[in-house]
Amino acid sequence: MSRFWSDLVHDLTPYVPGEQPRVAELVKLNTNESPLGPSPRALEAIRAEATDSLRLYPDPDATALRETLARYHRVQPDQVFVGNGSDEVLAHAFVALLRHEAPLLFPDITYSFYPVYCRLFGVRHETVPLDDDMRVRVADYRRHCGAIIVANPNAPTGIALSRAEIAALLDEHPDQPVVIDEAYVDFGAETAIPLVARHPNLLVVHTMSKSRALAGLRVGYAIGDAALIQALTRVKDSFNSYPLGRPAQAGAIAAIEDEAFFQASRATVIESRERLVTGLQQLGFAVLPSSANFVFVRHPHHDGAALAVALRERAVLVRHFARPRVSPYLRITIGTDTQSDRLLAALADILARNQPRAAAG
Amino acid sequence: MSRFWSDLVHDLTPYVPGEQPRVAELVKLNTNESPLGPSPRALEAIRAEATDSLRLYPDPDATALRETLARYHRVQPDQVFVGNGSDEVLAHAFVALLRHEAPLLFPDITYSFYPVYCRLFGVRHETVPLDDDMRVRVADYRRHCGAIIVANPNAPTGIALSRAEIAALLDEHPDQPVVIDEAYVDFGAETAIPLVARHPNLLVVHTMSKSRALAGLRVGYAIGDAALIQALTRVKDSFNSYPLGRPAQAGAIAAIEDEAFFQASRATVIESRERLVTGLQQLGFAVLPSSANFVFVRHPHHDGAALAVALRERAVLVRHFARPRVSPYLRITIGTDTQSDRLLAALADILARNQPRAAAG
Repeated sequence: MSRFWSDLVHDLTPYVPGEQPRVAELVKLNTNESPLGPSPRALEAIRAEATDSLRLYPDPDATALRETLARYHRVQPDQVFVGNGSDEVLAHAFVALLRHEAPLLFPDITYSFYPVYCRLFGVRHETVPLDDDMRVRVADYRRHCGAIIVANPNAPTGIALSRAEIAALLDEHPDQPVVIDEAYVDFGAETAIPLVARHPNLLVVHTMSKSRALAGLRVGYAIGDAALIQALTRVKDSFNSYPLGRPAQAGAIAAIEDEAFFQASRATVIESRERLVTGLQQLGFAVLPSSANFVFVRHPHHDGAALAVALRERAVLVRHFARPRVSPYLRITIGTDTQSDRLLAALADILARNQPRAAAG
Repeated sequence: MSRFWSDLVHDLTPYVPGEQPRVAELVKLNTNESPLGPSPRALEAIRAEATDSLRLYPDPDATALRETLARYHRVQPDQVFVGNGSDEVLAHAFVALLRHEAPLLFPDITYSFYPVYCRLFGVRHETVPLDDDMRVRVADYRRHCGAIIVANPNAPTGIALSRAEIAALLDEHPDQPVVIDEAYVDFGAETAIPLVARHPNLLVVHTMSKSRALAGLRVGYAIGDAALIQALTRVKDSFNSYPLGRPAQAGAIAAIEDEAFFQASRATVIESRERLVTGLQQLGFAVLPSSANFVFVRHPHHDGAALAVALRERAVLVRHFARPRVSPYLRITIGTDTQSDRLLAALADILARNQPRAAAG
């Protein structure tokens, strides 16, 4: 607290990202990073940017990257916006498209950055509870609102809506901007991007941090009608003309162009997920149906917080959220199969040493 | 215009950065980039980050970079904030420290992003005219205000206040946050950083885009009392947890550590500036006294806009601002001596072909 702060600063409750430990031996399954590295072509492109040309500003419009993304997603370059990670893209969307008189709607259980943006930018909002199966129900969004944002697959549940369900949501809200945050879409969900052509109110947000394994480079993007992109661009150009450096633009282009590597990576993650789900179920965990690179699980006889602490003691990091409805759960990133085995062994050990209260009593 | 936009978007007048042309043969003296490349150690550090570790998020707190900057500037790490270019640092400062009931003050002629931030973030402001010599006069800021921001050296004039004058400004405004934007300070002005120790209201902003020749990497930082840094951090963590990627953090650390390269670079730029100033004066230009890596010049008989167009026809890019008071001027970045010679030859040719109206009449 300081008398020099703007009033707003006192009211902020910043987002808390997952821990980035300095200890290398940890099995790090807490921030949904890829267990596989990025495309070697992306790495080469980044290295190639480390030259004297770094003295020059990057292209403020990231034209080549936007053209590459447009070709890849079969849209026009003026339907593509890029930013410094999808968090920055989302932040600009909250200012540019989601702030209206009527409240913004989003699920009660979702990416916990959304209410943080609302506070920072003064966006009125209401949350819509997930149903008892932790699913988003499109019908529950039939209410007065100024805009909607839904993560699909949702986080931290991992559960996806189908493209038909997203289309239904869009049909029911033709006059409101609808943002679909597809950070995890490449691990088994259907993207809404094909719906952009006939829904001028749809903005789809992607990240290169998950399925492209470039969390350390900071690139995200959005696809939508040119008028929506123009709104984001106006905000961006009032905030920071050059959000993406030269290495980021070049690395992102190369990553998008390496389709074979991308397809192999996501297939590997999906296989590892199915293998991990089986192992967790064998230990008695209930696993929500995941279309993401993480699973959201709970054990009928063990508390989520206690399990997370016990795993940390065994050098395995997972994410636990001490919030209503989700506190019984653990969110576990899909790692390599070796990491999964380390996790499963640790869990088996924890469960064996801590017999359920009912059995012990 | 679109019915999906937030109201604010309609009112924004984004900042327009200098052109980033795709044509390589141009003499590019329009965006104050360094004519010299970055430190070879910085380039090596960036290359070394292009590994599988890019799959992992960067340190959200940029701890190692902040420690490096703290050692360099003889402050504590909690007195250092880093961002995605100094434009992002400034944007967060407008939200966190410069938005109050009473108006923010800044010069009428200064970095043209300041009024853009005010519009985006709803910051009330008043401009304070430079004096007739285009100088900031500290005495003119003796008025009711909520905060002050001054670029020192100022842009696009290049004229610097002394540290004693900044100290006087701080002494007169002990209850208001004062931001000194030192983007160009390394080219001959005195930094206000030593004043941080006894002025808890002072925030000093630096960039690595100019004197460190890393405009393509996007790193800026701020130094001030820990409470001011905490305000910036709260806003940052409500906006984007990971503003700086791994290559940016590593490159910035190496650049700061290469003191010999830095000192040699800035000495070269200063020498080239003095040489260019002499050449421009010989052509009849009035040159404001510059402590920056650019000069702000006008010719008594030639219009700034016309000169900029004529230079462009000769493949030389400089910056012209079509705004009151500064429209007679050109802002010319200090390039290599070879580039200066190309510029001077082009100007000599233009002046010879366009005799002043008075002489021609």
